[in-house]
Amino acid sequence: MRVIKREIRIVGFDDGPFIPRSEGKAPVVGVVFRGGDFLDGVYKIDVKIDGMDATDVLIKIINQSKHKEQLRVIMLNGITIGGFNIINISTLYEKTGLPVIAINRKMPNLKNIKTALQNFDDFEERWKCVEEAGKIHKMKIEKNKNIYYQFKGLKQTEAESIIRLSCTRSLIPEPLRVAHLIASALVKGESRGRA
Amino acid sequence: MRVIKREIRIVGFDDGPFIPRSEGKAPVVGVVFRGGDFLDGVYKIDVKIDGMDATDVLIKIINQSKHKEQLRVIMLNGITIGGFNIINISTLYEKTGLPVIAINRKMPNLKNIKTALQNFDDFEERWKCVEEAGKIHKMKIEKNKNIYYQFKGLKQTEAESIIRLSCTRSLIPEPLRVAHLIASALVKGESRGRA
Repeated sequence: MRVIKREIRIVGFDDGPFIPRSEGKAPVVGVVFRGGDFLDGVYKIDVKIDGMDATDVLIKIINQSKHKEQLRVIMLNGITIGGFNIINISTLYEKTGLPVIAINRKMPNLKNIKTALQNFDDFEERWKCVEEAGKIHKMKIEKNKNIYYQFKGLKQTEAESIIRLSCTRSLIPEPLRVAHLIASALVKGESRGRA
Repeated sequence: MRVIKREIRIVGFDDGPFIPRSEGKAPVVGVVFRGGDFLDGVYKIDVKIDGMDATDVLIKIINQSKHKEQLRVIMLNGITIGGFNIINISTLYEKTGLPVIAINRKMPNLKNIKTALQNFDDFEERWKCVEEAGKIHKMKIEKNKNIYYQFKGLKQTEAESIIRLSCTRSLIPEPLRVAHLIASALVKGESRGRA
């Protein structure tokens, strides 16, 4: 990936609302966009709340998808999904062959995350995923508006180009904005939040 | 509604796959678009397969919605949903105050529909909805490509303007195209069909 095409196929994933610390699964929606413009496809999967299956579930749906050959990059809303189900973005990159960009609207508080993860028997494994995700970078989207991101499998300048071209409608990349709207509608009947 | 603004808020509904003639419900997804461009919101509802609740279910979700004040028109993928659950588009218009456009990709075969409806005890009521939906109009979208539509609550020229401005990405209005992708993903895990 050298030149970033405006129509680059991005798949973005976000989870829907769920009851924290409950048993069961959280719905996850993936949306395939061409750049920030054209919605090409949708996925609906589930991950265990506070489980550790998210990386495998994402690898499976992506590798099976009819869009796989067109896809160029995976976007995540942070590296956790369905509570403390932590995505190993190195493994996600290696097993799909697709670069990964994880976006946060706020600077994650790693100290608080570490404390929460210490409640899990497999703390070591989860914390390793957090550390392997690498440095959290800051990027200015607008005046006084920053987002924070981590990435694997591409250059930082490429990651920033992709973020910029996909923020067509708001301060969040379009695949993540739309995945969030759909996932919240699945649970609540009508979408909520950052439209 | 005189001049049709490019950013007119349209809500389009389509159903997801279900087993024909089975008991139970079919998932229905609604998508709020600004013109053919910006996805503003999503609804997820259910209607009884071959039931007669679709008109009421749609009225309720629309009238309760936080988008209600911005909405200007309802689009449907034909006047049936969840099998032979027939939408009374006159009632839908009257009870929501929003004009309705029902789109068909092919000319509906009214004779076949009538025969199928005669299997229902409430045939009279269902056939009345079909008749009240009014004449089916043909509209040329591209060379050799027509769509068919019925409408309530607006002028024919307005209906055609809205169809045209919302077909930004394909030969089907964007709210219906995207509602279809989402609804099929809910059932199948990955969206299918006319993307």
